[in-house]
Amino acid sequence: TAARLHGIEPTIFAEMSALALRTGALNLGQGFPDVDGPATVVDAAVEAMRTGRNQYAPGPGFPELREAVVAHQQRHYGLDVDPATQVVVTAGATEAIAAALLALVDPGDEVVVLEPFYDSYVACIAMAGGVRRGVTLRAPDFRLDADALRAAVTDRTKLVLLNTPHNPTGAVLTREELQVVADVAVEHDLLVVTDEVYEHLLFDRREHVPICTLPGMWDRTLTISSAGKTFSFTGWKVGWVTGPADLVASVYAAKQWLTFSNAAPMQPAVAEALDKETSFYEELARELEAKRDLLCEGLAGLDVDVYVPEATYFVTTDVRRYGYDDSLAFCLALPERAGVVAIPSQVFYDDREEGRHKVRWAFCKERAVIEKGVRRLAAAD
Amino acid sequence: TAARLHGIEPTIFAEMSALALRTGALNLGQGFPDVDGPATVVDAAVEAMRTGRNQYAPGPGFPELREAVVAHQQRHYGLDVDPATQVVVTAGATEAIAAALLALVDPGDEVVVLEPFYDSYVACIAMAGGVRRGVTLRAPDFRLDADALRAAVTDRTKLVLLNTPHNPTGAVLTREELQVVADVAVEHDLLVVTDEVYEHLLFDRREHVPICTLPGMWDRTLTISSAGKTFSFTGWKVGWVTGPADLVASVYAAKQWLTFSNAAPMQPAVAEALDKETSFYEELARELEAKRDLLCEGLAGLDVDVYVPEATYFVTTDVRRYGYDDSLAFCLALPERAGVVAIPSQVFYDDREEGRHKVRWAFCKERAVIEKGVRRLAAAD
Ligand SMILES: CSCCC(=O)C(=O)O
Ligand SMILES: CSCCC(=O)C(=O)O
Repeated sequence: TAARLHGIEPTIFAEMSALALRTGALNLGQGFPDVDGPATVVDAAVEAMRTGRNQYAPGPGFPELREAVVAHQQRHYGLDVDPATQVVVTAGATEAIAAALLALVDPGDEVVVLEPFYDSYVACIAMAGGVRRGVTLRAPDFRLDADALRAAVTDRTKLVLLNTPHNPTGAVLTREELQVVADVAVEHDLLVVTDEVYEHLLFDRREHVPICTLPGMWDRTLTISSAGKTFSFTGWKVGWVTGPADLVASVYAAKQWLTFSNAAPMQPAVAEALDKETSFYEELARELEAKRDLLCEGLAGLDVDVYVPEATYFVTTDVRRYGYDDSLAFCLALPERAGVVAIPSQVFYDDREEGRHKVRWAFCKERAVIEKGVRRLAAAD
Repeated sequence: TAARLHGIEPTIFAEMSALALRTGALNLGQGFPDVDGPATVVDAAVEAMRTGRNQYAPGPGFPELREAVVAHQQRHYGLDVDPATQVVVTAGATEAIAAALLALVDPGDEVVVLEPFYDSYVACIAMAGGVRRGVTLRAPDFRLDADALRAAVTDRTKLVLLNTPHNPTGAVLTREELQVVADVAVEHDLLVVTDEVYEHLLFDRREHVPICTLPGMWDRTLTISSAGKTFSFTGWKVGWVTGPADLVASVYAAKQWLTFSNAAPMQPAVAEALDKETSFYEELARELEAKRDLLCEGLAGLDVDVYVPEATYFVTTDVRRYGYDDSLAFCLALPERAGVVAIPSQVFYDDREEGRHKVRWAFCKERAVIEKGVRRLAAAD
């Protein structure tokens, strides 16, 4: 195996989902909903398949999807994006992240990234030969520490890799926090790559602010999102990246060799979803908020410390009071002990002290599944 | 843009297909059929979408697809592949190639590769920091030159990147030619990565031989194929890589970060196609053979030198007698002159003399389209 992959652990999500399948445990690990998105969107994909949308999509994506992405960003954020040069469709956000990092990071370049890190960030920075500089979001409230951010920037820093709403913590960066990032980016002339796949899944009336909307930021920011989380079709793998034409062209320069294009029949369906299914994700956010409460209360009842998330599919707990010092050992034993799979967040941390006790639980599941999971955990207690 | 992408031209296929759309010219450039694959396979994908196969597929692919790939390789080639550890599903062959090269090639490693090169090979070798060593398949018959192969190997050679049936020339490597490659690989302890997406689209009763079936080769070979060409669904982007568990694990180590997984609802449909639609690709090969003849005769009638292909979607011509010295200039002028798009094969060559006059034409199109194309070319003549 080439050096660029040395020391990169396999993705925890595949490992834990395989464990769930093998043991028959409830999967509160990998983030995917157990109810699919709108039937109208499935119908649109079926229609696309039946009417010959089965050959290569254009490399940058079908025009109708690029236009729908643009209209969606106009409606939600007042952005004015050119569909011809400022949008590229990708095989989910994952491909967009890989392509962006391979396109922008040279060996030795430093990437400032929020810790805990979604695992593909670590891997893609490493594959690009980059050096990660973590800025830790610390429990219990996972706020951005402006001093830690400033301290992480050096004269080798190339870009800041953001993620808001943040996986796994569920933190939503506030406008003030984003302004700190923007100030640092402008001062040091840094690029920003921001993964915003949970842009619509916020709770308690919180607002998602794309950092590209802050003054001076459009020209230095690549914004990544996808249909998977917004429309509950994680298996379709339709994502996109938007930003200034030069940066989008760089991403495309890498992306064209990773998959060329993707998901031809789903692309028109996602375009239709973006145009017409606005209420789907608004309702989904309300439902997830209620499920967050259900799971958080259930976990609190087990006497674990619960860090209530502001967004996303996930809640983090500290499992020390529950009698476990190490979240990996905890999660590996859990299927057997309790018939439940969860994610050991320690794999997302360089900072062993901050990470070792933390476990991530997914609540993007039917209420009955969450209730059953909590009952099982209580019984195993 | 990062150094790994410097000097890599954008993929010619996107460029020429965009030109076809812009000018309304007939697209005999990019290789995709204008008739979709079996309706039963579309039905299977529709059924999968309607029955909830819309969330993440497992990273290595759904078990049923991995088992169908194994059964298919057993039936056709007598191989005995382990579906659990020796198959990974990818986002088309393109992702498999990218992942294999990123996983196996370190900066400075040399890759021996057949020239003319499919463009993603050049790009992925460069992205991995590798150095390509071309072995030119020369017109008119595009045979493998054993001496040229041996001369291309040095003590820095890491792997041989094969492609048979070969795009763009349409050459099928014979068992004897493959034996030469195998001997060199064994002697120098090289890996082989082989792109065999046209494995079923051979003419004149030729036989496709996977190099992994030659003695001593299984353990050093990664074989790549896909559903796109075999079942005429190029837009679905379902491919796979098979080989010994250690090499497949290396590919997966890279692949998991490029897309994680792909095309959940199409995966079961492709499994069904592999199991049941054998006659589809046998008939497709016969139809393509007839279309090859139609296009070759038409082109010969224009007084260009035609190199009749043994397989694939493509025929190559030399356009000198037609009055053109440079195939890129020829192809850029062709939409205007004749309302036809073709691919300037010179972009696939380092060897300027061998490449500059060659043009690739696709015949994976309806007869009426081919006939119209030939009429337009004749009228422009
Ligand atoms: C791409 S698999 C991981 C899914 C996900 O976003 C998560 O569980 O965090
Ligand atoms: C991935 S786009 C190119 C399609 C193709 O295989 C070809 O035209 O050679």
